[in-house]
Amino acid sequence: MIHLDHNATTPVHPDVLAAMLPWFTERFANPSSPHPDGVAAREAIETARAAVAGLLGAPAHTVVFTGGGTEASNLAIRGVMARCPGRPLCIGTLEHPATREPALYLERQGHPLAWLPAGPSGAVHADTPLPDGLALVSLMHANNETGVLQPVRAIADRAHALGALVHTDAAQSVGKVPVDVDALGADLLTVAGHKLYGPKGVGALYVREGVELEPLVRGAGHERGLRPGTENVPAIVGLGAACALASRELDARIARDTALVEALWAALQAGIPGIRRTGDGPRLPNTLHVRVPGSGRALLARCPEIAAGTGSACHAGHETPSPVLLAMGIEPTDALGALRLTVGRATSAPDVQRAAQMLVAAYSVS
Amino acid sequence: MIHLDHNATTPVHPDVLAAMLPWFTERFANPSSPHPDGVAAREAIETARAAVAGLLGAPAHTVVFTGGGTEASNLAIRGVMARCPGRPLCIGTLEHPATREPALYLERQGHPLAWLPAGPSGAVHADTPLPDGLALVSLMHANNETGVLQPVRAIADRAHALGALVHTDAAQSVGKVPVDVDALGADLLTVAGHKLYGPKGVGALYVREGVELEPLVRGAGHERGLRPGTENVPAIVGLGAACALASRELDARIARDTALVEALWAALQAGIPGIRRTGDGPRLPNTLHVRVPGSGRALLARCPEIAAGTGSACHAGHETPSPVLLAMGIEPTDALGALRLTVGRATSAPDVQRAAQMLVAAYSVS
Repeated sequence: MIHLDHNATTPVHPDVLAAMLPWFTERFANPSSPHPDGVAAREAIETARAAVAGLLGAPAHTVVFTGGGTEASNLAIRGVMARCPGRPLCIGTLEHPATREPALYLERQGHPLAWLPAGPSGAVHADTPLPDGLALVSLMHANNETGVLQPVRAIADRAHALGALVHTDAAQSVGKVPVDVDALGADLLTVAGHKLYGPKGVGALYVREGVELEPLVRGAGHERGLRPGTENVPAIVGLGAACALASRELDARIARDTALVEALWAALQAGIPGIRRTGDGPRLPNTLHVRVPGSGRALLARCPEIAAGTGSACHAGHETPSPVLLAMGIEPTDALGALRLTVGRATSAPDVQRAAQMLVAAYSVS
Repeated sequence: MIHLDHNATTPVHPDVLAAMLPWFTERFANPSSPHPDGVAAREAIETARAAVAGLLGAPAHTVVFTGGGTEASNLAIRGVMARCPGRPLCIGTLEHPATREPALYLERQGHPLAWLPAGPSGAVHADTPLPDGLALVSLMHANNETGVLQPVRAIADRAHALGALVHTDAAQSVGKVPVDVDALGADLLTVAGHKLYGPKGVGALYVREGVELEPLVRGAGHERGLRPGTENVPAIVGLGAACALASRELDARIARDTALVEALWAALQAGIPGIRRTGDGPRLPNTLHVRVPGSGRALLARCPEIAAGTGSACHAGHETPSPVLLAMGIEPTDALGALRLTVGRATSAPDVQRAAQMLVAAYSVS
């Protein structure tokens, strides 16, 4: 298989897994235990916290570990809004369900919900009017399908001027492009371990000093009371190791991903007449989103050696186009031609050439 | 170190870790991906679900995977009560914060909260009157400190007669004693992976067919919409393997734990005048809870080779006795003598003899 689906998930890096392993077995103590094994587990968590914070340009104590990216975004959005009864919130129209669903829930609970619309560039309009009394804007840093970077800083400056807080779901961008909480103007920022060669089932939320949240889950006082439950020590250690690796490798990753994606695009463009690249402007260097004439899903089905995504959903034989592409104003039949091809650490130049050959050949016989 | 702290956490069993390992690296696909690697990950989740359900005597489709035991209990309690506006709930006075804190939160939101009081036996009174209009009882199956089993079935029968649902936190009992959802009369039951030689950061909630819950975290539709976020495949596979192991080993574990605990108790009783065993009636076979004259915490501090718990908290040099023991009517000074000694798979007969010798020697010089 050629895995061109790195925005769906990534393999745990061997060094990350090696860092995790002792904490499953020999060093398994509960970090809340006062005995020396428990203290060692507690210290491992704090080392990981510093590594995550370091990648984000944040102080260590501003990072809260969660059970994943979806939970981190829920904690941010619902944690802020629980303290702002009746006030509006605002999200982008291209958000992941991890943002959209808690926002729609809050709307049903009586919070007015405003939207930042997007255009064919794949970015939301940074000059969209924001409602009076706004409590929170949540805008993803990079779209998971198109890879297009969103104008987080521009929106954040305007939201801050209104006294609102700013959350960004950076699950797709952390480890792929520079992510700095101050440069972005983010008060809250979501990280998902499995998107950057860390384990599944662990995430982190950056919470700017002074920002107060209601917890989502309630129990004992773990993670400053914001995320109770025995800490997932191996996964937290793994997330820390993945972030440390990303800090060291980031420049090389960007150069390598860019070269692979541009080579893939050149080969596809040469072989598939009418193929178009989606979106415009700055985007994730690892992400190539294209639309081919016809069905992207059917094309992929003829390339069983390629693991990739389309963004379309298929239920009972009926295909629904990606809501992200529709929200960009792309026509439904056009959107059904979508292919999301996302490279990663293990993707080689021959891999992308071979994938392009398979896609072109499959397209030609269709 | 002699680890006598298995109720705090357990090491991941080597067979469990071996089952998990491929899913971190080679088999890392997202179970939502339609390609063959994704389908294989989806199948692994369903195999694990059947193993967890099998240990509980439940159909596979009634098990929902969560990010841990605390989250599972929050989902059960808040998930039921969100659909019963204004109605009362009832919990035991010996509950873990994972139950107590969401219940207290619901009380602040306007739900009357009733309590099941406990006596020196360590069990709550099964004949406590239950309030009219009761929506939910949450009663732990086994207390985490004393190991005393609670009258879940008796309370469940009375609660069901009132039309209420029944949740039990079985985090401490699953894998140590038989746990059958029908025998207990439980409509909802919490499992925590790391208490039964599975990984941290994963739990499960049994949800009886027909019981409707509001989700706690909102996002995409994973776990029937009850727990969105990319599934933690390795940890779910690990929880399944741990439950399969427990199903095979349960009788042997009970026999072995009972022999170890009774030997430990005999040795401590012979060497520490005035030592008392806490509670009465059926309890977890792996748990020995005792009170020594003086400070349990100080005694343990003189035994640095023993990892064990006390249940007391220590803040800024001041010691607070365990709320569980106080709720049983034990005097504060008596409660400060608590020692929780909990054996597990790797504990040997020489281990408990050596631990007893160390505790007796440390007590004698105090």
